[in-house]
Amino acid sequence: MSLKFDFSNVMEANIGSTHGLSMENIEALSGKGLSALKEFRERAEKEELGFYNLPNQDALCDEIESYAETVRKRFDYFVHIGIGGSALGPIALQTSLRNSHYNSGQKPKIYFPDNIDPDWLHELADQIDVSKTLFHVVSKSGATAETAATMLYFMDFLTSKLEDDFYKNLVFTTDPAAGLLNQIAREYPIKCFRIPPGVGGRFSVLTPVGLVPAAIAGIDIKKLLSGAADMAAVCDTENMLENPAFMFAAIHYLYMQKGKNISVMMPYSNKLKDMADWYKQLWAESLGKRFDLNKEKIECGQTPANALGATDQHSQIQLYVEGPNDKLITFLEVEQFKNDVELKNHFTYIPEFDYLQGKTLGQLLNAEKAATELALTNNQRPNLTIKVEEVSEENIGAYFFLMEAATAFAGALLNIDAFNQPGVEEGKVATYALMDRKGYKQKKKEIEAMFAKKQFFVIG
Amino acid sequence: MSLKFDFSNVMEANIGSTHGLSMENIEALSGKGLSALKEFRERAEKEELGFYNLPNQDALCDEIESYAETVRKRFDYFVHIGIGGSALGPIALQTSLRNSHYNSGQKPKIYFPDNIDPDWLHELADQIDVSKTLFHVVSKSGATAETAATMLYFMDFLTSKLEDDFYKNLVFTTDPAAGLLNQIAREYPIKCFRIPPGVGGRFSVLTPVGLVPAAIAGIDIKKLLSGAADMAAVCDTENMLENPAFMFAAIHYLYMQKGKNISVMMPYSNKLKDMADWYKQLWAESLGKRFDLNKEKIECGQTPANALGATDQHSQIQLYVEGPNDKLITFLEVEQFKNDVELKNHFTYIPEFDYLQGKTLGQLLNAEKAATELALTNNQRPNLTIKVEEVSEENIGAYFFLMEAATAFAGALLNIDAFNQPGVEEGKVATYALMDRKGYKQKKKEIEAMFAKKQFFVIG
Repeated sequence: MSLKFDFSNVMEANIGSTHGLSMENIEALSGKGLSALKEFRERAEKEELGFYNLPNQDALCDEIESYAETVRKRFDYFVHIGIGGSALGPIALQTSLRNSHYNSGQKPKIYFPDNIDPDWLHELADQIDVSKTLFHVVSKSGATAETAATMLYFMDFLTSKLEDDFYKNLVFTTDPAAGLLNQIAREYPIKCFRIPPGVGGRFSVLTPVGLVPAAIAGIDIKKLLSGAADMAAVCDTENMLENPAFMFAAIHYLYMQKGKNISVMMPYSNKLKDMADWYKQLWAESLGKRFDLNKEKIECGQTPANALGATDQHSQIQLYVEGPNDKLITFLEVEQFKNDVELKNHFTYIPEFDYLQGKTLGQLLNAEKAATELALTNNQRPNLTIKVEEVSEENIGAYFFLMEAATAFAGALLNIDAFNQPGVEEGKVATYALMDRKGYKQKKKEIEAMFAKKQFFVIG
Repeated sequence: MSLKFDFSNVMEANIGSTHGLSMENIEALSGKGLSALKEFRERAEKEELGFYNLPNQDALCDEIESYAETVRKRFDYFVHIGIGGSALGPIALQTSLRNSHYNSGQKPKIYFPDNIDPDWLHELADQIDVSKTLFHVVSKSGATAETAATMLYFMDFLTSKLEDDFYKNLVFTTDPAAGLLNQIAREYPIKCFRIPPGVGGRFSVLTPVGLVPAAIAGIDIKKLLSGAADMAAVCDTENMLENPAFMFAAIHYLYMQKGKNISVMMPYSNKLKDMADWYKQLWAESLGKRFDLNKEKIECGQTPANALGATDQHSQIQLYVEGPNDKLITFLEVEQFKNDVELKNHFTYIPEFDYLQGKTLGQLLNAEKAATELALTNNQRPNLTIKVEEVSEENIGAYFFLMEAATAFAGALLNIDAFNQPGVEEGKVATYALMDRKGYKQKKKEIEAMFAKKQFFVIG
């Protein structure tokens, strides 16, 4: 693992005292940080803070790798059915560590249908031969509406082709014992992988949720976990000012207190683009909370936004540099690319291209990153950089663990439960009511009454 | 065109007076809106507000369609080289109106390399046979660093295969006369399409920038423009309360004044996902400005965030419902899907799935949208809905124009220039300096001095 966390551009020495922080600001939080760290260790011991223990799963890796080898031989298509935390991590692993055109050359082709758009699913159904497709259904409870619906959608195709043998094309990742997928697995001999206790969806990428599809794609999952383990050791540092997870959390916490309600994750690498999407869920769902642990109403949280460098310099940077100073930006930077080449000016009669002559794309990309960093810093806009030597299994594993630990520290500083999501319940109930689920009739009437009141619209 | 703009859930009747608006609030802005509308018309007449005139280009459509037919016969690959406004619109057209797996069945395969990540470009170079590839280079000035670098990158492959015939595999969309691409086109007989005067990058999707790749993909570009024309007529309505572009702008403006600094675009449709990305550039770069037209420092603008329903209910909704009430959410809803089917509960021993029996995926998706809308509204979180009957050329064209006109109105209400981007200049200069471009030596020294001061980091 080789990862560096640079927080120079949040310090008042570099961006001034109005928008900058002092080491004293950060040090003042280190007592809370250390208490939190000790609590994490205790809770991990009791399997309540499951993600903390995930780097050490050698036996599981062996099991998954041998399973993956069989799958690669038997199937031409692999369809991963999960949503939210059951999809964002797996997708980020695939896009960061595999070729962007993976499906045009590899077997099995891998798909992640993480939504229920009928036209989009129809397009996927048209691509695959279900009899040669393994469906990986991922849900702790098995009751997740979108996952269940997508599974039922593909079951139609499966049973019409394979009849009673349909179960041979299913694999589940679910709760160790409870839930609806386990009920199905009791009726048919379906292979099941387990999500360990105390690991919530958004912290589950290093369980079979992410490891199974990764191994099937040929990603070295042991290296992934070894990177996470290295980072876990660093994030266990009791000197809080040398603990990158605490530092990331403390800096974000201090800016939340200063009213900066937006956290931007901006990789300068297409391969890391979906890492920002994964982070968006982690940060939003963990920290966006109405009540703190004392039941006080606080409505806290930062809205995560994703951007991609250099692309979004042509989209978001105008706003970041000149608009409200209301955000903290984290760059992800890659030092070494695998296939960098020198450019040549083929149009010698255009001297305006000469500055590109002999330079590589990677040099240009990282010069643009430095330039953006500079423009932000000169305009007192706080920004951080997480720099990895290269996009590798180890560094991706390290990044996942770093962000998860940082989220746990941020929850502790905010004095909230970073591991629940009570705010999604209301929408679930309303969905059941609108879908005429038994027991929700009264709720449906309430909803219809509300929608009947709608009266403000313009028709184009 | 069939598009409806529903603003019920920003009205105080539905979300209370603390976070809601009254019709009086909106009406108070209608005088400014009408003046702005009259100014738009005058400036469009003088070709200063170019996007306003784009719906009416029948002759251009004929030219592009006949060109596209030739391209489809001659080439197996089409690579669109552009960034920011030269890519986001073309990408959104492709993903909304074509099959998600277009490249696995169609010819030419279409790619949009809108970044300079060396590994990502290398993966693309590996996919194509350059001698059968048409490269569409899009840049008004031809000087855009990323576009120039990407063109030079592929030129290496092109000239090594085709030698002096390389130009036959190039097509440019650029300024009518000025710029570097026109210099190249004077040396070689390269086909050039034109970006009309007064059309900035982020307003250029309905010029050849978007129309050329769309036509090559078989999208009906006349229908696209006819939808835009229908919407242009609606957005020309002088009764401001019936003008959806003004209404969208006025509502966002009022919330900016109330401190809601985030604008979320959340389509409930995978096909419309990249529409949100296109919107992000339009809204951020147009409205994120340091100075108003009187040169007063105002640092205005909203940070646009994108989310995807139902997927991001499992990612962002916890925050949107329970976190800070600091955002205005716009849903994009599709009424009719093309390939919707009824679900069947194949696991009859699991009654928990019964509510899905006989329901369609589209019903579930839109029930989830309604449920999310309800949860937000019940928690006084303002939200809007733009509803289209179906994802079609006409409605996509209408959406583009609606958002562009809304952005123009928002700029007028904020009293800013919505059509420039002065804040990106500083980063450009620093990039040139770091790339050792002639004339930037002093700047490079300044930058190196600044980076030498860096001292705050943690190593993992």
